[in-house]
Amino acid sequence: MKVEGKNAVMEALKAGTTIDRLVVAKGLSDPSSQRIIIEAKSRGVKIFFRDKDVLERESVTKKHQGFLAEITDYKYADFEAMIGKIVESGQSNSMVLLLDGIEDPHNLGSIMRVAECMGVDGMVIPRHRSVSVNETVIKVSAGASQHMQVAKVTNLNDAIGTLKDNGYFVYALETNGQDITKTRFDGKIAMVIGGEGKGVHALTKKLCDTTISIPMYGKLNSLNASVACGIALQVAKSGMGK
Amino acid sequence: MKVEGKNAVMEALKAGTTIDRLVVAKGLSDPSSQRIIIEAKSRGVKIFFRDKDVLERESVTKKHQGFLAEITDYKYADFEAMIGKIVESGQSNSMVLLLDGIEDPHNLGSIMRVAECMGVDGMVIPRHRSVSVNETVIKVSAGASQHMQVAKVTNLNDAIGTLKDNGYFVYALETNGQDITKTRFDGKIAMVIGGEGKGVHALTKKLCDTTISIPMYGKLNSLNASVACGIALQVAKSGMGK
Repeated sequence: MKVEGKNAVMEALKAGTTIDRLVVAKGLSDPSSQRIIIEAKSRGVKIFFRDKDVLERESVTKKHQGFLAEITDYKYADFEAMIGKIVESGQSNSMVLLLDGIEDPHNLGSIMRVAECMGVDGMVIPRHRSVSVNETVIKVSAGASQHMQVAKVTNLNDAIGTLKDNGYFVYALETNGQDITKTRFDGKIAMVIGGEGKGVHALTKKLCDTTISIPMYGKLNSLNASVACGIALQVAKSGMGK
Repeated sequence: MKVEGKNAVMEALKAGTTIDRLVVAKGLSDPSSQRIIIEAKSRGVKIFFRDKDVLERESVTKKHQGFLAEITDYKYADFEAMIGKIVESGQSNSMVLLLDGIEDPHNLGSIMRVAECMGVDGMVIPRHRSVSVNETVIKVSAGASQHMQVAKVTNLNDAIGTLKDNGYFVYALETNGQDITKTRFDGKIAMVIGGEGKGVHALTKKLCDTTISIPMYGKLNSLNASVACGIALQVAKSGMGK
C-alpha cells in the first residue's frame, strides 16, 4: 500500500507503521521535509532519495509533495495481550519465540513458516535492529503470516521478564549450551534466537534461564537461523508432554 | 570462470561441465552455432541471447565467436567411489542424502550447509531436473561446499538400488509417513528429500524402504526444503547409536 504526502507519511511514522521503503524527492530543504526525514531516520526506515519525476511516475494520487512511503498492512499483536490470552486459556504447554535482531526478511519469513508448522503460540521481535514484517517476509512465510501472531516490543529483555512472571522457562539458543536432545522440555517455554552471525546479545542471554545448543557433527559450526530454529522447535515440541 | 569460443563451449557441454549461464550473440544462424545451442538446450543450460557488444564487453580473451559460458569449478564426487569408500572404511553408522529435484540454488546451498553440520557423509543429486552446484549454491553453503562431497547421477532410482546393495536403509521424507520422532535410526541410512512443492517422485518413493514424516502442529503443512532436511537429519543423527 502507498502512503503519499508530507502529513500522511509523518502520521504513519509516528504511529510506528512498518514502512518498507520511503522515497523522498531530491533537494528538499524546507523545515517540514527535514523533520520527516529526521523522524524516518530515527526509526530506522530505509530512505531512497530520487529525482522528482521518479515520484511522479510511482505516485498514485499525484499529490506526493516529495514523499512516498510503501507500507505493509500487517497487524502486529500486542505483546501483553498475547501472553495474557495464552495464560488465561489454561493450556499447560506453550511455545513462544523471541528473535533477537533478525535482519534478513527471508530469514524472518522462513522462521515464521517453521514456527507456524511447529505450533508456536506467538513470536516477538524488537522494534529496533530487526527487520519488520514486510512484503518479502509475508511472501516467504508462505501463508504463515495469516496464522502466526507477531508482537513488536521496545525491549526484548523486558519481554523476557514478563514471560518469566507468567510461568515461562526461557531458553537462549546459542553455541556452548546444554545439548537440546538431552534437554527435557515441558510446560510453558520461550526460546530466544539470535540474529544472523551475531547470536543472542550477552545481556539478553544472561536473563534467560538456560542456554541450549544443537549438537553439531561436521567441520562447520553454524546453521542458518531458520534451520536452527526449525530443529530447536521440533526437538522442544516433540519432547513436550512426554 | 569463463569459457569462450565455439569449440571450448561445445567441449564443456559434452563433458557435462556445470554451466551457470551461457551468453550467445544474437542472430547466429550457421550450422556449428546451431549445434551448440541445441546441445545446450538439451542439457537444460540457461541461454541468454545478447547483442554482440555485450559479449565484447564481457569477454576476457576477445575471441568469443559469439559464445561465452560461465562455469563453476566445483568438482563432483563419483557416486560409486563415494559409497565404496564409506563401506570400506568399516564405519557402522552413515548418513547419505539424496535430493530428488531441488531447483532453487538457495535451497541446495542451504541443504549443503545443514548436511555438513549434521555429519552427512555425501550428497547425491540427479543430472537432470536439478540445480547444479553453481556460484550461488557455493556462496549460500557458507563454506560447506569445501567439506561436503556431492555426486551427480544420471538416475536417482539406480543410486537407491546401489545404496540398498551396500547395506543402506533408504527413507523418503514426505507427508503421511511414519513419525520421524518415533522412528529408530541406526546403521547406514539414506534419506531422499523431494523438490520444492513437488515432493519425492512416486516411483522413487516406491523404491525407498519406508516413508517418514515430520510431525506438524500448525495450520500449514509444508516446510521449506532445507528446514525440513535439517529437522530430519538432526532427529536421525541424534538417534543413532543409542
